Amino acid sequence: MLESILTTLDGRMGGAVEGLCRFLRFPSISTQPEHAGDVRACAEFLAQALRDCALEAQVYPTPVHPVVMARNAHRAGRPTVLYYGHYDVQPPDPLELWTTPPFEPVLRKTPAGHDAIFARGASDDKGQIWAHIEALRAWNGQGGLPVNWIGLFEGEEEIGSPSLLAFLREHSAQLKADLAVVSDNAQYSRDVPAVTYGLRGMTYLEIVLTTLGHDLHSGLAGGPVPNAAQILCHLVDSLHDSQGRINIPGFYDDVTPLTQAERDAWAKLPCDDPAYLREIGATALCGEAGYTANELRWGRPTCEVNGLTSGYQGVGAKTIVPAQASAKISMRLVPRQDPRKIAALFQQAFRQRAPRNAQLRFQEYFLADPIQFDLGGKAMAAAAKAVEIGFGKKPAFVRGGGSIPVVSWLKQILGLDTLLVGFGLPDNRTHIPNEKFDLDSLHWGMRMAAAIYAEIAKL
Amino acid sequence: MLESILTTLDGRMGGAVEGLCRFLRFPSISTQPEHAGDVRACAEFLAQALRDCALEAQVYPTPVHPVVMARNAHRAGRPTVLYYGHYDVQPPDPLELWTTPPFEPVLRKTPAGHDAIFARGASDDKGQIWAHIEALRAWNGQGGLPVNWIGLFEGEEEIGSPSLLAFLREHSAQLKADLAVVSDNAQYSRDVPAVTYGLRGMTYLEIVLTTLGHDLHSGLAGGPVPNAAQILCHLVDSLHDSQGRINIPGFYDDVTPLTQAERDAWAKLPCDDPAYLREIGATALCGEAGYTANELRWGRPTCEVNGLTSGYQGVGAKTIVPAQASAKISMRLVPRQDPRKIAALFQQAFRQRAPRNAQLRFQEYFLADPIQFDLGGKAMAAAAKAVEIGFGKKPAFVRGGGSIPVVSWLKQILGLDTLLVGFGLPDNRTHIPNEKFDLDSLHWGMRMAAAIYAEIAKL
Repeated sequence: MLESILTTLDGRMGGAVEGLCRFLRFPSISTQPEHAGDVRACAEFLAQALRDCALEAQVYPTPVHPVVMARNAHRAGRPTVLYYGHYDVQPPDPLELWTTPPFEPVLRKTPAGHDAIFARGASDDKGQIWAHIEALRAWNGQGGLPVNWIGLFEGEEEIGSPSLLAFLREHSAQLKADLAVVSDNAQYSRDVPAVTYGLRGMTYLEIVLTTLGHDLHSGLAGGPVPNAAQILCHLVDSLHDSQGRINIPGFYDDVTPLTQAERDAWAKLPCDDPAYLREIGATALCGEAGYTANELRWGRPTCEVNGLTSGYQGVGAKTIVPAQASAKISMRLVPRQDPRKIAALFQQAFRQRAPRNAQLRFQEYFLADPIQFDLGGKAMAAAAKAVEIGFGKKPAFVRGGGSIPVVSWLKQILGLDTLLVGFGLPDNRTHIPNEKFDLDSLHWGMRMAAAIYAEIAKL
Repeated sequence: MLESILTTLDGRMGGAVEGLCRFLRFPSISTQPEHAGDVRACAEFLAQALRDCALEAQVYPTPVHPVVMARNAHRAGRPTVLYYGHYDVQPPDPLELWTTPPFEPVLRKTPAGHDAIFARGASDDKGQIWAHIEALRAWNGQGGLPVNWIGLFEGEEEIGSPSLLAFLREHSAQLKADLAVVSDNAQYSRDVPAVTYGLRGMTYLEIVLTTLGHDLHSGLAGGPVPNAAQILCHLVDSLHDSQGRINIPGFYDDVTPLTQAERDAWAKLPCDDPAYLREIGATALCGEAGYTANELRWGRPTCEVNGLTSGYQGVGAKTIVPAQASAKISMRLVPRQDPRKIAALFQQAFRQRAPRNAQLRFQEYFLADPIQFDLGGKAMAAAAKAVEIGFGKKPAFVRGGGSIPVVSWLKQILGLDTLLVGFGLPDNRTHIPNEKFDLDSLHWGMRMAAAIYAEIAKL
């Protein structure tokens, strides 16, 4: 049965690309209120695509952007799988850095010479969702899925999923399942597919610092008046010590150290630092002393400035002492750090360090728990087998540097472990201009997505 | 004769306000290339206004914005005065903070309850120029000025006067004079008019720091990759020590210390810190330890961030490691600091402190020499007498925190000392939204401008 489904999928690439391109044309940018209508239209499109695979699908409004839920006809005695994906995307800006417009998907070669679809969301997460939809379609063509399947698609992942927690609580009866499957992350490299057994969490804050009622002339007033930009730079610089460690009291208290087994396993993964430096356009790596790049990305927390704003930003010069300065700062967290506690520690450190002539205001955008699953289980073996069938190679077991808040909520609210079987590539440029998704990824992902239900059905 | 001229001016306020409002309607923003036509139109208007006072006036093109030059018919045996002003203005942004549009001048009460004209350039420098034009008109109505008068008006003061130095050199024969008069600064307070005997210089740089070829996903990549915003904050924070001193090796080497006589004289000036804090919306002053606010503003150098830019600045959150960050930084200089040397010291310190994974690019916007004139001369006494006639009060002798590059060039190229008799008020909000010019300032300034030529004629 699976063999015949895989054969069907191998012949479905044209239709799959066409469907994905339609999905990518929606500018479903969740963080920009003016795109709320596009997000809603994208949800409707997705629900219809699921109905086309003989699934029952419905769009549920939430206080922000809708959730799409779908399911197949119940088959008694079979395990139930909850599949999660998100159909919203990051803002595309800066627009001028896109080779082709972000919401007009095109097929062309990647710098590495592979065929790919270029568009915002191509990899994160619409391309991966679409591979699963093609697998569902193929199973439907052969009598239906071998498991009970529930699809859960949100439109708020890129803004921290503000409505999803309440939605999970409210619909927990309908979402009862044995296991979750998520493909919203990357494999290790083009040659090394992966099963991901952990994700970092996140605390994302914006800090607005004010020193004056309005900007002042830097000549007439400058000297005795507090400069918001300079005070902000001082506070931001205080967040790291000279060893790259995060200088917030209590920040590391709950960090689970990396095990030697993990460090040993990761050290065996192929790692080409010069090639990576060329790809990202950097001259040297950095970060907390004593850890490899993979360890820093997957197993250690970070504190990164995502944006800085103060004073005059136009062309030329303006001679002012800025009254206000702001920074968007995100901290990636590892097990067992608590994003709420970290938010509080951060604000406390900032307040203690700020001089008395600076007023601080904080806004919380995201809070996501870090998560880690046991490598020993049968479900993990099923995922590994499905990846091997899909990609023709045994997967590596890795952790992920990103954050998928829903994964920890599925555990907390529904008691579900998640199989993280993402098949983005590290060079997919998610969140930045010229995001792409290789046609090979789509193809291998479709095969893996078909296989994973066969493997889970055996559990 | 002067009495009758002053009486004429006292009756001229209606016409003066009307003329000034026409001058203010030109958005002569020198730093924004799209306003080049407005700058040119403003120059033509000014030349015509001078011709209306029976002066010969001409608009001279330069590589950037035009210079307007004017003169009266030569009177043998009289001293020659070179009057300088600038008809360009600062950008008005942020526009949303203006109560009324910046280039639609309106009369209304100031927060302090005085009648004033609100518009960009009202105080800096169009209002002060217009007071002088009214004085020229009044003298013309009574047989002409008692001195030989040359007017020099540039359209590039707010961008560092890139064409003026060459213009002064090229036209030095036509600009031969005995003394310069400039009103492009402020009096000490509403109750204390001033003669200014020194100005700070300036070095204005933009620093662009790059660490990556493009922004990266802060989850997938964050940890081992260099964050441009954080490195910039580190470098900016390194510019001051904990005592508020500027931490650039060699920066203070050439600073002329304040004399005890100056410190004593300035200490006697009325100073209401709580009122000033309320006016600027700050809770405490700051700056280099061991100096009063006036000393910091007039007699000590500064290093101020005027603008900061990096990463995502839109609404909401975006999870990126920014590839680039930039800062606009200006240093106000005191005698005998050399702006070219300071620019070099700054760049050297920044380069030495930058980690090897950060590339730096510098752009120089302004270089202006600090200047200081001897208080003992007869010309200074003439200026003081004119201020007393204009304002009905004896002036304070102060230095200014701003920079007027032309003042040092007039000394270097033409050998001229300058009488700095500005009559802006400290709350005029120059360079920021809701700039204004009190009608009293216009009136007192017109009287002072008429008197100064009578006093200089006696020298």
